[in-house]
Amino acid sequence: MQVNIIGTGNVAWHLAKRFETLPSVRLKQVCGRSPVALTPFVDLARKTASIEDLKPADVTIIAVSDDVIASVSEQIPFSNQLVVHTSGSIPMEMLSIKNRKGVFYPAQSFSMEDKVDFKNVPLCLEFEDKADKKLLSELALNLSENIHILNSAQRQQLHIAAVFANNFTNYCYTMAKEICDEHRIPFSLLHPLMEKTVAKAMAHSPQLMQTGPARRGDHNVIEQHIAKLTSQNQVDLYKAISTSLLKHYGKEL
Amino acid sequence: MQVNIIGTGNVAWHLAKRFETLPSVRLKQVCGRSPVALTPFVDLARKTASIEDLKPADVTIIAVSDDVIASVSEQIPFSNQLVVHTSGSIPMEMLSIKNRKGVFYPAQSFSMEDKVDFKNVPLCLEFEDKADKKLLSELALNLSENIHILNSAQRQQLHIAAVFANNFTNYCYTMAKEICDEHRIPFSLLHPLMEKTVAKAMAHSPQLMQTGPARRGDHNVIEQHIAKLTSQNQVDLYKAISTSLLKHYGKEL
Repeated sequence: MQVNIIGTGNVAWHLAKRFETLPSVRLKQVCGRSPVALTPFVDLARKTASIEDLKPADVTIIAVSDDVIASVSEQIPFSNQLVVHTSGSIPMEMLSIKNRKGVFYPAQSFSMEDKVDFKNVPLCLEFEDKADKKLLSELALNLSENIHILNSAQRQQLHIAAVFANNFTNYCYTMAKEICDEHRIPFSLLHPLMEKTVAKAMAHSPQLMQTGPARRGDHNVIEQHIAKLTSQNQVDLYKAISTSLLKHYGKEL
Repeated sequence: MQVNIIGTGNVAWHLAKRFETLPSVRLKQVCGRSPVALTPFVDLARKTASIEDLKPADVTIIAVSDDVIASVSEQIPFSNQLVVHTSGSIPMEMLSIKNRKGVFYPAQSFSMEDKVDFKNVPLCLEFEDKADKKLLSELALNLSENIHILNSAQRQQLHIAAVFANNFTNYCYTMAKEICDEHRIPFSLLHPLMEKTVAKAMAHSPQLMQTGPARRGDHNVIEQHIAKLTSQNQVDLYKAISTSLLKHYGKEL
């Protein structure tokens, strides 16, 4: 199977590196805006190209920022091939009608310095033409054991769920660390608890694992905690999440 | 070293089980309110006692609910021994003056069915009499490699930080799962992302690891997400945390 990659960001980089190790996938071309952006792909330099020189492949993967996916897909010089994007939030329909549309979305956050174990990365697939299911699944199964077929609406909802499960939890960690730092408590004291929390939420339903003063409706402790917080932002956030928790569990406000 | 435990909850249970395996610690008595509460301690039955029959030990650990720690400490029939409680939020001062006061707080959540690897559980110690530092540290080091000396004010702040790092993150997982369930998306799709988030927050500063629309100040995406949420509670929480994030990172509100 021949694959093209358009893009030079984290997703493009990790996919390119992985494809190069797979015997059943041939990375045909990697396409970036500028020689500078292609620098990390130096091992693959013989394959780098500008978009107007891109040749057809079984799958062409557009791994660029959300806001340029549509225009990049319009610039592809060939037609009637399978062209997929890798975004969680852009509907498949945004791709150009010149080619067969699809989505190849890895539900994981990537950064350049991380090693990615693709085996455990959930890959969410979507395709316009049912005949492309086989091709896209085959490519996905080469990378991961965790393949899902989601439509664009589901993928967008997954992306919103990820804001809660990733962005918002990370921000709670930031607040926790801020409190620790203010009182000269090593943040590492909370690490085992953080790991345990995520392990329990995965093994059981987080709904059933909830503990703490708001879960119990313990307004005394909530008030004590709020009185001890040092910044208005901490207070507002503590109140807002506690209020939501109290409502969720039908406790008195 | 001889140790008594007062209490029959999760912390008491896990401590008792662990002490029984340690060659250098002898669990002298376990003390609970009723025979029913002591049922899980059946292996230790020869050691169970009611509080009026409790005999002195090197360390007597009160592992009961926060609201009865003070009264239980008053009921102890001996004096001038080291008596510690295991609570994150109760000041050491709440213990009865009859005995030497201390705190032995495991900063981890326990449930009956979990196996606890005490080696990684941070133990937070406090003591009134400096001479008890050695005794309490020795007991702690028998259980864990992760020992910290915190005063009551720090321990309370740690407890507040834990509300953010455990209670609030778990609630974010609950919201994420709710969204997944509503749209027939397996929650397991988010598991690798959840694990990665916690791993990054521990390895680096969560403050620096923050991503997402609120971090970028991307009001378009925030509005799109809010428009797609299905319950008022989800909307309120999404807005509140995003507002806090925008403020924290100095973005326009």
